[in-house]
Amino acid sequence: MNTRLVKIQEWLKSNHAAFTFISDPTNVFYLTNFKCDPHERFLGLFVFPDNAPFLVCPELEVIRASESGFEYDIIGYQDHEDPWIFVKKQLEDKRKTSETVAIETSTLPYQKALKLKEYHGSCTFISIEPIINTLRNRKDARELEALKKAGEMADYAVKVGINAIKKGRTEQAIVAEIEYELTKRGYSEMSFDTMVLTGEKTALPHGIPGTRQIKEGDFVLFDLGVIVDGYCSDITRTVAYKHASDAQIDIYNTVLKAEKAAIEACNIDFRIGDLDKIARQIISDKGYGDYFTHRLGHGLGLGAHEAPSMSMNNDNKLTKGMVFTIEPGIYIPNIGGVRIEDDIYISEDGPLSLTSFPKEFIIVP
Amino acid sequence: MNTRLVKIQEWLKSNHAAFTFISDPTNVFYLTNFKCDPHERFLGLFVFPDNAPFLVCPELEVIRASESGFEYDIIGYQDHEDPWIFVKKQLEDKRKTSETVAIETSTLPYQKALKLKEYHGSCTFISIEPIINTLRNRKDARELEALKKAGEMADYAVKVGINAIKKGRTEQAIVAEIEYELTKRGYSEMSFDTMVLTGEKTALPHGIPGTRQIKEGDFVLFDLGVIVDGYCSDITRTVAYKHASDAQIDIYNTVLKAEKAAIEACNIDFRIGDLDKIARQIISDKGYGDYFTHRLGHGLGLGAHEAPSMSMNNDNKLTKGMVFTIEPGIYIPNIGGVRIEDDIYISEDGPLSLTSFPKEFIIVP
Repeated sequence: MNTRLVKIQEWLKSNHAAFTFISDPTNVFYLTNFKCDPHERFLGLFVFPDNAPFLVCPELEVIRASESGFEYDIIGYQDHEDPWIFVKKQLEDKRKTSETVAIETSTLPYQKALKLKEYHGSCTFISIEPIINTLRNRKDARELEALKKAGEMADYAVKVGINAIKKGRTEQAIVAEIEYELTKRGYSEMSFDTMVLTGEKTALPHGIPGTRQIKEGDFVLFDLGVIVDGYCSDITRTVAYKHASDAQIDIYNTVLKAEKAAIEACNIDFRIGDLDKIARQIISDKGYGDYFTHRLGHGLGLGAHEAPSMSMNNDNKLTKGMVFTIEPGIYIPNIGGVRIEDDIYISEDGPLSLTSFPKEFIIVP
Repeated sequence: MNTRLVKIQEWLKSNHAAFTFISDPTNVFYLTNFKCDPHERFLGLFVFPDNAPFLVCPELEVIRASESGFEYDIIGYQDHEDPWIFVKKQLEDKRKTSETVAIETSTLPYQKALKLKEYHGSCTFISIEPIINTLRNRKDARELEALKKAGEMADYAVKVGINAIKKGRTEQAIVAEIEYELTKRGYSEMSFDTMVLTGEKTALPHGIPGTRQIKEGDFVLFDLGVIVDGYCSDITRTVAYKHASDAQIDIYNTVLKAEKAAIEACNIDFRIGDLDKIARQIISDKGYGDYFTHRLGHGLGLGAHEAPSMSMNNDNKLTKGMVFTIEPGIYIPNIGGVRIEDDIYISEDGPLSLTSFPKEFIIVP
């Protein structure tokens, strides 16, 4: 049994749980190496403290599931069959050792929780997420390799994007260039929809690339990530086209200073919420406090957004092996915005940036 | 108030519900025109039988939310704030008219259901999904236009893909060509990861494009969709490269016959499950029954997979305005597979195919 499943088993034992039901596809992948997007179909990994785990998945995924290396029962169901019948049969084969069942409380749909109650009898739910997040938080050497490569490809993608900047070009055309070059190199999975925003649209932290054409004096903002072996990168760079106003330069340098200061503080045992405060203080001191409208960053790994949340009220401390983004921004409605984002790995020697595209203000000629 | 929200209000009245909490981003978009992927952040639309609705979303989405046309209260919260505090305040302002609360039982996470109980006091949950699915099932004229355009672009994408077939080309390279051409034309959102599979990999209904190179005699399978104004298309075509064996021709023609027969039966009031049976019977009669391992299709709209499920045990009948896929397939492990898929709209005059790329067997020279 792989060490991750062993750790889940140990946790179940010490928490006196009968079993855990894992249905989030990313958690299933993390624990079994079986990557599956079941859409609305049922996917379930059941792990027991003292019995072998089993996996229930659509029949049309059984071949891929067994090729993934999961060495226990894989139960496929056809589309016209009720997967819960198979779950019930399996659960009946195991002795009911406890009323406690561990679930993913933040993602498991209400209906599925009810179904579990129906089949397990009276039960008390506890969350399996703390132990899964603890495991996923500490990236091992193989995971770090994938994250490094994902960071490198994100750097490359920004380079492609900047080279594609030309007067009159649309945001969508630049997205096309970036993704084409990556796919040709074998990286066709992006961490999320690639974002290229220009001009006043850069003031929208979650804007959508459209047909706006690049003009002189525009900010051009790239926010994108590449998936390598399942692991996500996430980078943001903002540049100007042809020239920049004093106001643009001031905003840029403020964000840059905030970003660098927060990264510098990324050491083991540092309180996570204080990283946000460091960046926010620098931005507030320059009078832009109202325009930094989101947290400092988020965890990164198999998920493009995962634990930890780099929010000012996160009292947890940085621990070895964490990977997360640092991404302060200033967004001034109808004018424009700047965000600078890197992916940081917490090593014993301090922060290691997995993305390294230059971040001094670039004015594209 | 838009007619969709009015219908939700009427339903809440006749079901004596205090309110409904909608958090699925697609349902929120359908009811408000506000498109938002909140990732792990909180998004909630609250609709009442007799009061104005309100929307809670991340602060950094408030501008986009108000631009979407939602004309009621939009409450933004910062990343360090607890959105439930705002929900609680709003709920307290409304009189508690009933203990019944309508939720999306199949998607609402267990934890959020618990939170609702905490703030609403003792309550009984009912599902809001039947009425939402009924509304979403009946596509109106504007939705049909988007779906038609999405179908046209899917046809175009298959054409680009077939033109890109060349000896030694990889699956990933062809995916890159397809998505590049679409993005250049302004369609950068795909319904799901574009699938191009070749040779024996076509036997995996959910295979992942890789570095396998095209060889003579291969099947090449394209399964892809394009999103237009939020609406998804989904097409599959399978071709052969250079030559095809008698076995390949027989498999292809069997799938084609099954697909055409099922489409022909798509008339108002026809039992949905029987469409699957029609296709399955044709495939079974030729001895391939064991190799058609999934349902006939799925509903299509804002979701790439939505109601109705075109499964043999679906007792519902076809109704005007439904849009769904018909996609029988035969998959023979280690040899290869064929799937043919079109998007069908149910009109008063029978089935209208929204995808129309030719489907007689093509052998690419």
